[in-house]
Amino acid sequence: MSNSVKIAVIGGDLRQLVVAKLFAENDIETAVFGFDLYTGEFPPVTKCMTAADAAYGSTAIILPLPCTTDNAHLNTPFHNGKVLLDDLMRSITADQIVCAGMYASDRPNTFDYYAREELQILNAIPTAEGAIAIALDELPITLHGARAVILGFGRCGKALAERLKGLGSHVTVVARKESDLALCESYSYNAVSFRCLSNAVSNADVIFNTVPALILNEPMLKHIDKHTLIIDLASRPGGVDFEAAKRLGLNVNWALSLPGKVAPITAGKIIYKTVCNILKQEGVL
Amino acid sequence: MSNSVKIAVIGGDLRQLVVAKLFAENDIETAVFGFDLYTGEFPPVTKCMTAADAAYGSTAIILPLPCTTDNAHLNTPFHNGKVLLDDLMRSITADQIVCAGMYASDRPNTFDYYAREELQILNAIPTAEGAIAIALDELPITLHGARAVILGFGRCGKALAERLKGLGSHVTVVARKESDLALCESYSYNAVSFRCLSNAVSNADVIFNTVPALILNEPMLKHIDKHTLIIDLASRPGGVDFEAAKRLGLNVNWALSLPGKVAPITAGKIIYKTVCNILKQEGVL
Amino acid sequence: MSNSVKIAVIGGDLRQLVVAKLFAENDIETAVFGFDLYTGEFPPVTKCMTAADAAYGSTAIILPLPCTTDNAHLNTPFHNGKVLLDDLMRSITADQIVCAGMYASDRPNTFDYYAREELQILNAIPTAEGAIAIALDELPITLHGARAVILGFGRCGKALAERLKGLGSHVTVVARKESDLALCESYSYNAVSFRCLSNAVSNADVIFNTVPALILNEPMLKHIDKHTLIIDLASRPGGVDFEAAKRLGLNVNWALSLPGKVAPITAGKIIYKTVCNILKQEGVL
Amino acid sequence: MSNSVKIAVIGGDLRQLVVAKLFAENDIETAVFGFDLYTGEFPPVTKCMTAADAAYGSTAIILPLPCTTDNAHLNTPFHNGKVLLDDLMRSITADQIVCAGMYASDRPNTFDYYAREELQILNAIPTAEGAIAIALDELPITLHGARAVILGFGRCGKALAERLKGLGSHVTVVARKESDLALCESYSYNAVSFRCLSNAVSNADVIFNTVPALILNEPMLKHIDKHTLIIDLASRPGGVDFEAAKRLGLNVNWALSLPGKVAPITAGKIIYKTVCNILKQEGVL
Repeated sequence: MSNSVKIAVIGGDLRQLVVAKLFAENDIETAVFGFDLYTGEFPPVTKCMTAADAAYGSTAIILPLPCTTDNAHLNTPFHNGKVLLDDLMRSITADQIVCAGMYASDRPNTFDYYAREELQILNAIPTAEGAIAIALDELPITLHGARAVILGFGRCGKALAERLKGLGSHVTVVARKESDLALCESYSYNAVSFRCLSNAVSNADVIFNTVPALILNEPMLKHIDKHTLIIDLASRPGGVDFEAAKRLGLNVNWALSLPGKVAPITAGKIIYKTVCNILKQEGVL
Repeated sequence: MSNSVKIAVIGGDLRQLVVAKLFAENDIETAVFGFDLYTGEFPPVTKCMTAADAAYGSTAIILPLPCTTDNAHLNTPFHNGKVLLDDLMRSITADQIVCAGMYASDRPNTFDYYAREELQILNAIPTAEGAIAIALDELPITLHGARAVILGFGRCGKALAERLKGLGSHVTVVARKESDLALCESYSYNAVSFRCLSNAVSNADVIFNTVPALILNEPMLKHIDKHTLIIDLASRPGGVDFEAAKRLGLNVNWALSLPGKVAPITAGKIIYKTVCNILKQEGVL
Repeated sequence: MSNSVKIAVIGGDLRQLVVAKLFAENDIETAVFGFDLYTGEFPPVTKCMTAADAAYGSTAIILPLPCTTDNAHLNTPFHNGKVLLDDLMRSITADQIVCAGMYASDRPNTFDYYAREELQILNAIPTAEGAIAIALDELPITLHGARAVILGFGRCGKALAERLKGLGSHVTVVARKESDLALCESYSYNAVSFRCLSNAVSNADVIFNTVPALILNEPMLKHIDKHTLIIDLASRPGGVDFEAAKRLGLNVNWALSLPGKVAPITAGKIIYKTVCNILKQEGVL
Repeated sequence: MSNSVKIAVIGGDLRQLVVAKLFAENDIETAVFGFDLYTGEFPPVTKCMTAADAAYGSTAIILPLPCTTDNAHLNTPFHNGKVLLDDLMRSITADQIVCAGMYASDRPNTFDYYAREELQILNAIPTAEGAIAIALDELPITLHGARAVILGFGRCGKALAERLKGLGSHVTVVARKESDLALCESYSYNAVSFRCLSNAVSNADVIFNTVPALILNEPMLKHIDKHTLIIDLASRPGGVDFEAAKRLGLNVNWALSLPGKVAPITAGKIIYKTVCNILKQEGVL
């Protein structure tokens, strides 16, 4: 990698520190801001006094995932203070590249790395592992031999199905497209159309929902046994009618943002890898 | 399935007889034509004297894969005679559904089942098994522990990679898209960009090409060891410069149309399944 | 199963209730004692007032795993009182069969089901899942891509290796016998002799010990990185010098009796299955 | 490896040449005899004029697998002549080590490498691949989705079951011991006792016998459908009543000595590895 490239990593959690560490280990000059509350090991980077200091002169500025949680301030869980996102952006010149997670902007040279397909696919790995950890912790039976039903066969559905098969579960995937059902058959998962959803969920020891839509509404929840564990991996507003589930005495676990929680180092590496792809594409690395 | 539905299965090889058998076993009245040379077991169907007789009065007419090999006559390997495709089509009324393999037509109610995604995905299974059989038969080493390089991560690449991993090969997938490389990583295959193709192929015991483009041209072939087995699964014109490979003393096996050859019964079932999907979509089944 | 057979299930935890439930569901008259503190669902069995009442007239008496924790009283975590094992045994006639877990006795018709090979093999499944759950909960990286080192290739080593491979870990098994190393090679695990143990453990993200001997003594622990997670599955006295590990700042997790903790229902089914094998062998079922 | 060690490789097929090659590549002085008819590439070894010349002065003499096919002469398929085994053995001094395949002898310093457990386990890999190749070549259906029944869960049964699962077959293992049935359950194969053999074989698309006993006798064969492929991997006299099978019109394939046939290079490497283990154990390497 070019020695003239300078990277600023500003805000965020352990994942951002991993990003900073990986840049530093690849001999890239790296400045950070926003980790004054962090008490663990520090990578060999320059710690700056302000976000603007860190950004100044850097080729690219890496902002956290999510970039902001209130649409106003930078997401800085390890910083004892607040950084207005607008202030920070104003301190950045037009030729500097900004890579931020879950951040939409008209600014040129600005990239939402969270929107990149490769990040989403790689993030499905810690998501699947986190979901499996929940199932292992909560179920009184082994996943081996358990009837696991996965709703959806996108990135998370694929990662989950493969791992559950590896653990010896009886995997049923509920999908919409004939081509997805065919692909499930090729991978030796039991494949079921959404037309047969009620039958599938009524015969499950554990249900993993990956579809970001209200799939498990009240009528559907009524088909589910109260011993069945439901793990909802869909982002807000989720795929389960939580109120109805509570009324019906069902066991629902809404598992959000698993990668950063269950495997922050791996999740940081995935962000690093994706940001590098963006920087290579832009001719910087 | 509705008893008033009648199906005609005309021409083709063993796969078409399997299609006829499966319709008959599901209590659909089925007529066939074009199997006078077939000496094996026959399903319980009506054998007709002409193609037009079989087609007459049927709800849907199933033609073979490929429908024709000369753009004029129906593909009828088990028939001692020739059927002009135009003659047959003229005998079919506008409301009758025609399902044919590799057959493009402006006629309404005409469907090329070979173009359906689910058929392509399911066909990748016998294709992968056929390719593995070739490798098992030709290599003097076991696939277990062998360095297997797969070019392309489409349907065939996916089916091959999973099965070779199951046999204990060291699987490297060469793909173009970052998202495919990420998916390979999730499945624990070694993932390599096409930019590194020469390095990948120079360290292979067996190379499976699935990309329908001249990937292994003369300069690339020069990187390949003469003990490496090359299996080309790409349809015409293929992905290997066969002339150059011959000059270089390389061992290339061009494996076309594997499903019908290595697993005709499974291939017939796949066509049946796909045709049923078409007929359901058209409201017939 | 014969209707004249009567079973008594006395003492123990949820696993014993599962055993009672499965006998009852198979139309065997079943009496239980020792669950007065249990507040959950009850299977359709006869609840007795004393252990002797439950045992009276039964063909076989099933005692818990472990049968006793103090060598004097029956292990009765759900009973508000104490039962002397000797008293209970005196109330049982010579022709009655006793099946007890971890219980050695000269009494005829007495069987330690915990000593049965099939129970040990099946118990390795929840043990492996429990160990994986610990690793998922504790590691800041994914098991996918992690370097997992398993010490020993007995029942637990086999179950762990297969599941970690299914999750995409890089699995290294350390074993003693050439034949075990060969079997590991066949399953595509990295196989290493105990002569190379120090090298293996120094390159691990997580180490699972399954060998009931002091393998990880102080000199060996010095080779292990402090980021490495050590999970010891060996029963007392364990396979790790815990004092030394503490001094060295290593992260050791001693995981005992996992099946009953992580998957009590499955663990109960395994006991039931094993007890049935004993009763069939004795001509009772 | 010590430079003073000298190895003689005498007789045999391509596997023996691989053994010679691997010794030579590890800088061991290697002499060979018995390959005058071999026209392929030669490893960098000394070709001798007689067997005694090759043996003279060598630390260890490696004889083929099998060592002899007629109990009198050395097995020398690549030699235009005959070597009496007794003559050769007389030319060898008492301190020289002899490693021979399928060769029982009272002579000190003589080792039957074929009897070594690690060779048998590793040989199960090419045996399983060879059996799978036969099934792929002969069955008109894919192994994916096929009902594959494996008789016996020893080395070959284990290797076959794992690979067939990897190809997506529905694997049923028929075994005798409860502990083997439990192990099958852990690996997610369908496990069936030999008591239920007739039912298992009657529902098979392909049967692999690995048990060296007449399991598939005439009464049992009568349960097998004539579309079922039977592959017998048991050594002489085999596990199938071939006469009866012929009368019943069953399709039996007796597949012997697969490793040397389907993967001679791998089979040679396995012999090399095993012989090295013997020489290390004897303090020579």
